[in-house]
Order: sequence, then C-alpha cells, then structure tokens
Amino acid sequence: MIQQLIEKIRKTKAPLCVGLDPMLSYIPDPILKASFQEYGETLEGAADAIWNFNKEIVDHTWDLIPCVKPQIAMYEQFGIEGLKVYERTVRYCQDKGLLVIGDAKRGDIGSTSAAYATAHLGRIKVGSSFRTAFNTDFLTVNPYLGTDGVKPFVEVCKAEDKGIFVLVKTSNPSSGEFQDRRIDGRPLYEHVADKVVEWGADCMDKEYSNVGAVVGATYPEMSAVLRKKMPHTYFLVPGYGAQGATAQDLRPCFDDQGLGAIVNSSRGIIAAYRQEKYARFGAEHFAEASRQAVMDMAADINSVL
Amino acid sequence: MIQQLIEKIRKTKAPLCVGLDPMLSYIPDPILKASFQEYGETLEGAADAIWNFNKEIVDHTWDLIPCVKPQIAMYEQFGIEGLKVYERTVRYCQDKGLLVIGDAKRGDIGSTSAAYATAHLGRIKVGSSFRTAFNTDFLTVNPYLGTDGVKPFVEVCKAEDKGIFVLVKTSNPSSGEFQDRRIDGRPLYEHVADKVVEWGADCMDKEYSNVGAVVGATYPEMSAVLRKKMPHTYFLVPGYGAQGATAQDLRPCFDDQGLGAIVNSSRGIIAAYRQEKYARFGAEHFAEASRQAVMDMAADINSVL
Repeated sequence: MIQQLIEKIRKTKAPLCVGLDPMLSYIPDPILKASFQEYGETLEGAADAIWNFNKEIVDHTWDLIPCVKPQIAMYEQFGIEGLKVYERTVRYCQDKGLLVIGDAKRGDIGSTSAAYATAHLGRIKVGSSFRTAFNTDFLTVNPYLGTDGVKPFVEVCKAEDKGIFVLVKTSNPSSGEFQDRRIDGRPLYEHVADKVVEWGADCMDKEYSNVGAVVGATYPEMSAVLRKKMPHTYFLVPGYGAQGATAQDLRPCFDDQGLGAIVNSSRGIIAAYRQEKYARFGAEHFAEASRQAVMDMAADINSVL
Repeated sequence: MIQQLIEKIRKTKAPLCVGLDPMLSYIPDPILKASFQEYGETLEGAADAIWNFNKEIVDHTWDLIPCVKPQIAMYEQFGIEGLKVYERTVRYCQDKGLLVIGDAKRGDIGSTSAAYATAHLGRIKVGSSFRTAFNTDFLTVNPYLGTDGVKPFVEVCKAEDKGIFVLVKTSNPSSGEFQDRRIDGRPLYEHVADKVVEWGADCMDKEYSNVGAVVGATYPEMSAVLRKKMPHTYFLVPGYGAQGATAQDLRPCFDDQGLGAIVNSSRGIIAAYRQEKYARFGAEHFAEASRQAVMDMAADINSVL
C-alpha cells in the first residue's frame, strides 16, 4: 500500500494530504442554510452541509493531491448521520482515485484492536460472506497498550495490503508530557519508534514499510533523530500551517530523495478562504481558495526538498 | 455523575458492569439465522442479530446491575449498521435505568478531543439548536497525547455532569511494554496516575472525582499502589474472569468501604452459556446463563470486600 502512496506522491509532486476535518463554522452560510432548510437544524442537516462542503473541496483538489485524511472525530460528533458522511466521503475520494488515511487513532487490547482493524481496514465474516465497513487505505493507531494492541492492525495490513501510521511524537503542545519523558536516557517516543520499526519489519512494501509513524512537524529536531532511526518508516506529519510548523521544519522528515513523509494540512486548506491571503476568493468560491492553498502548500514543501 | 454510579452500586450490591461486547460467534444460531433470513448475510443482518442478543442479555440482567460497558469497536466493525445498534443499545440501557460507560478509548489533540467529547458525552450546536450524538454517561479516554488531549473531555464532564475513565494501567499482556517503563524511578503509569489526579481535582462529585482511571485487575500489586496514590479516583477494572484475574486480585482496587472500583466482565457474562459451569442452561437460555453469571460474579466480588 505504501508504494501506491509513493507513486501518487511522485505523480502529483505533492507530498501532502488534505485533512478533511470539517467544522460547521468553516462552512459558508448558503450551504448551511440550504441544508437546514431541507433537514432542519438537526444532525442530519449538519451532516448534509458537511457532505456538500467536503464534496466541493474534493472536486476542486483531487487532481492535485495523492490522498486525503478525514479525522473521524469531526464526523462522530454528529453521530450516525455524521458517520454516514464519513463513509460517503471515503468512498467518494477513493472513486476519484485518492488514497484515504482514516485518522481515528484507535488502539485497545488485542481482541478489541482486531475489531477496530476490521472496522477500518479489513473485512468481516458475516455467515459465509465477507463484508467491509469503513474500508480506508490507511489508519492512524495509538500505541499506549503495546504490541498486543498494535499487532492486529499489522496483521490486517499484511492480509489486505493496507497501511497504518502509529503515533510516535504528536504535534500538540502537551505531547511532551509523557512522550518526551526519559526512559534509560532516551525519550519515550524513541522507545515507541523502536517498536514501530520492529512491528513494520515484516510488513515491507519495497523500501518502505506499510507500518508508518505519526511525527509532528512542530518538533523538527526530534523529527531529524527519528528520520535517522527509522529509515524504512513513512512519516505522516501533522502540524504544518495552522499549528505553526513551516516548510523548513518539515525538511528533516524527508529522506534524501524527497520521500519518506506526507504532510497534512486541515484548516489551512479546507478553511483557506477565511485567511487574509485567500480572502479575494470570497466565501462563495471557498473551494477554489482551497485549490490555491494546495498549490501553494505543495510549492512551499517542494522549495525545501 | 460518579455519585449516581455509587448509589446504583450500593442499591444493587454489585460493583460490576456487564461488558456488552458481542461477537457473532457468541450469538446462538437461531438468532443469527432469523436475522440473516430477514436481512441476508449483510452488515444489517449481523447488526440485527447483535441487537437481539444484546436486548436479551439486558432484559435478563438490568435489575441486578448498576451499569453496562459496551465496547464500541465491536459495533464499529459492522460499520454504520453496527453503530446504529451501539446507539440503540445505549438508549435501551439508559431507559432501563442503567448507566452506560462507552468504552471507546478516544484521545487526540485538543480540538479533536473536543469533538470526541461532544460525540460521546456532550451536545453539539447545530444552527441555534443543541443536539446529542451517542450521549453515554461515561467514556474511556487514552492519555498518550497529554493534558491538552484530555482536558476537553474533563470540560464536558463539568458542563454536562458526565464522567471519564482514563487509561492508566491496562489489563493486557503487553501493557507493561510502555506503561511499566521507569521514568525518574517510577513507572510511566504512575506518572499518568498523577496527571489523572490533577485533571480530576476540580471535577469532584463528593468524595470521588468524575475523572476516573482504568486499572487492570491482572496486576494486583500495581492496583494497590495506585489505590493509595489516587484516593479520590474511581477505578474501572477490566481483566476479571476470562482475562485471568480472580476476586482476590480485585481487592486492592477497592477502598475500605468496598467502594472505589467497578469491575467489568464481558465474555464471562454475555457468553456464559458457553462455559461448562453454565452449560446446563443451553444456548436457547443464554440470557438466563448470563443472569446467573452476574449473580455469581457479584457474590464472588462481595466475598472479598
């Protein structure tokens, strides 16, 4: 699976993914009003507005990008109606030829992680038939429960040619609270990184493993250490743009060939029209602002590779 | 909210919750067949079977217990249809007067955790209306991202009188891989425990906080240390029964009054009829076997309190 991502990155020359993490506050009024008119101020109405918003963004960016990363929490907050839109967005993007990273950060004890792996990457046996549920191409995974909580995801990656990104060093301000604490002289996230390498060793897809790592762009000196320690691990990199990291900060995440990392931007792309830089598009052309923001982000990243 | 749980525990004399974590393999054939006949071997068919199974278990146990803990992964693996049954199960249990602990182990960066908190414990503003999504009473939370990933859950607990249980020391075999690693001479889970106490300090509900901890029963010497360190923190205790812990192992999780902990059993209750001990009930009376297993578990726990 990771080779499919690499091919798409090479083709688009855009090592980035669009974070489809819609908030109602990002959605221009006319879209909201139309949905509320049809479905009322209900979860269904909100979900409909989110779908219409997402579709516009995807329609205006799909040819420029290798993949998208919907954050499932943003859909889960609208309950079943929201999750239907998550599923519909995943399918729509895949039909456009995009790879989809489900950002769900799941992780539990073994048998439960197996159920999550089935839910998001695998197939479930119902009677004598096999069915799929959310069926994304990649999933983000939380490592706090250790090997037996992560292995079921790795097994599904092997069986179905899918990929995961395990949280190693996250981009948020308090990520260091536990992740940076030193164990035998090295921070916890390095110990997690060692395990990610181990888990990914028999899940290789040419030079990179289908078991990747989440490495926040907001801590570039740590990215540099991790890049060296994990030469066959692809990085999913949050933290660019709205969260504060610059293109220079991203450089250490990439290998010498400009591969090894895919950078996410959510707000910076999908709510671009609200930035002064893209204000000229106006709310009615929000998706064109997103398209321009994708082009600018790709150019910005490529300038340091 | 934690006081509501304590009152229900006092009334039922059963400091336990039934883990509604259905697997298709637990469901007696006649139920499966009926659902497949109506809906085919589809996700809808599987979900219907799970609902019918859950309903029987709840109908046969609700008067004996304070709460249930559905593991959302077991529903998520059937996609939207499964999650509809999760929602329906939550509502059904609440209508019976049971408290519901959503076992979802969510956790992310701040804004995303806020969305998860809304999804599972809070309300979302849609236009000028407020709507709820899954609306459980408690939720389990993963701490790997630190304070800014947990605080949004705490805020919702305060605003809506809800509760959370934060993973401290989990019950699975490899939980020690990261959780037991020593930082400044103390294991990581103790550092997490310190933070849980801190997060819960301004979220008190009489003598206990609405911010609880998940503490696996499979490591009783560690439970004893944590019980002492966390005198105002309620423990949600997995690991009893099928996972190997005995009633003796549970003792250290409780305080002197026999409060302070709620013990979960999933397979041991909902699939009791498959144990030799309850074989006399037969598959057709699976829910009566579950009822007997609840009574036996309550007696077993009470014998050490």
